[in-house]
Amino acid sequence: MEKLDLLYEGKAKRVYKTSEEDLYWIEYKDDATAFNGEKKAQISGKGVLNNEISSILLTLLKEKGIENHLVKKLSATEQLVRQVEIIPIEVVVRNRAAGSFSKRLGVEEGNLLPKPIVEFYYKDDALGDPFINDDHIAILQLASPKELELIRETALKVNDILSAHLGERGITVVDFKLEFGKTRDGQVILADEISPDTCRFWDAKTNEKLDKDRFRRDLGNLIEAYQEIAKRLGGEIHV
Amino acid sequence: MEKLDLLYEGKAKRVYKTSEEDLYWIEYKDDATAFNGEKKAQISGKGVLNNEISSILLTLLKEKGIENHLVKKLSATEQLVRQVEIIPIEVVVRNRAAGSFSKRLGVEEGNLLPKPIVEFYYKDDALGDPFINDDHIAILQLASPKELELIRETALKVNDILSAHLGERGITVVDFKLEFGKTRDGQVILADEISPDTCRFWDAKTNEKLDKDRFRRDLGNLIEAYQEIAKRLGGEIHV
Repeated sequence: MEKLDLLYEGKAKRVYKTSEEDLYWIEYKDDATAFNGEKKAQISGKGVLNNEISSILLTLLKEKGIENHLVKKLSATEQLVRQVEIIPIEVVVRNRAAGSFSKRLGVEEGNLLPKPIVEFYYKDDALGDPFINDDHIAILQLASPKELELIRETALKVNDILSAHLGERGITVVDFKLEFGKTRDGQVILADEISPDTCRFWDAKTNEKLDKDRFRRDLGNLIEAYQEIAKRLGGEIHV
Repeated sequence: MEKLDLLYEGKAKRVYKTSEEDLYWIEYKDDATAFNGEKKAQISGKGVLNNEISSILLTLLKEKGIENHLVKKLSATEQLVRQVEIIPIEVVVRNRAAGSFSKRLGVEEGNLLPKPIVEFYYKDDALGDPFINDDHIAILQLASPKELELIRETALKVNDILSAHLGERGITVVDFKLEFGKTRDGQVILADEISPDTCRFWDAKTNEKLDKDRFRRDLGNLIEAYQEIAKRLGGEIHV
């Protein structure tokens, strides 16, 4: 199988067509962005670590019955994935208050929520990915009610699996963002990545941030934090 | 029955205790505010018109089976209402795109939505009344899932009644905000006001704005617009 034309370049990944119609070839980049692209940097080694961590977590989820796009890790920065059409909804699951949630609702960062909650955002850079509800999703025809229910349930299952697996490794899963895609036969499956770029991971003992908040908030040592996550997940450290 | 101590002064109304435990005495003020209180003015006659319009619409809703707090209109600016504890959720129903909805989701103002939609906002001035979803309402314990379902269903019924009644009078109901309250025996009923301060009303033929957007957007002739609404609803014009 061959890597063909570049199909799409996102903030953190490039997506290529392949000689097989149902497969895409993904390259993780070292670019870091935050605040809808307003803050940007190149952080050497980030692509390698996100590919490693995301491959481990997507493989774990597949083993636990969560269908997703990962076919296999190809190299330090590359993955082979199933071709899907991304559903333009960012699905956020929160176990603890943090970030925009804390600010918007006046809940102190770190506070444990009485139950995990799910939020949907309209994946649209020009609009700044606005927070939306089920009615908005219906009228914008982003997903059918049935698909949305599947997405919500899957996101909560992913949360149970990640929280248990990372919890055993001394990592608190504060919140994370998922994206889903539709295969050519209409199946809705988990897609995109699961990494410290898309999750808030805190050291369970010290509450030290081991995720992209180190970049957003200028805390430094981002690569060391991502390496720590990779190490605790049993990943090989390439950086 | 006597009017007793001032209990609460809001942006547009004063609420007094009465000699009867289950009743409040409400006074409509001439104050206009917008953008979470950032823009302010006194508009002579607004209190009289909102009391007139709100009394007409709450009476109509009661006749159509929507339980609400209005007991009776007492004077040009006063109402007697049932005592309720306001549930801190602003319930917005939209038939057409307008205002913040248009801006946030990139839908042109005036566009008819495929179906009426419901949005919830957390009634909290300090936080700027943030948009919230059902999960937020659950974890902030603003209402039980059962209460929320009742609120949603009632809001959509209110929309059907208002849209039909005003539609027959040449007024398009673009969107509106409701508040609900809990009586001492735990019943959830419609409360607050329904007026051009809390609704977007457009002339059905010309799309002329007959609501608070005249103040928000400096269009002038606010009192004339509110008078037009009162007139079409069969109200007495006191101003």
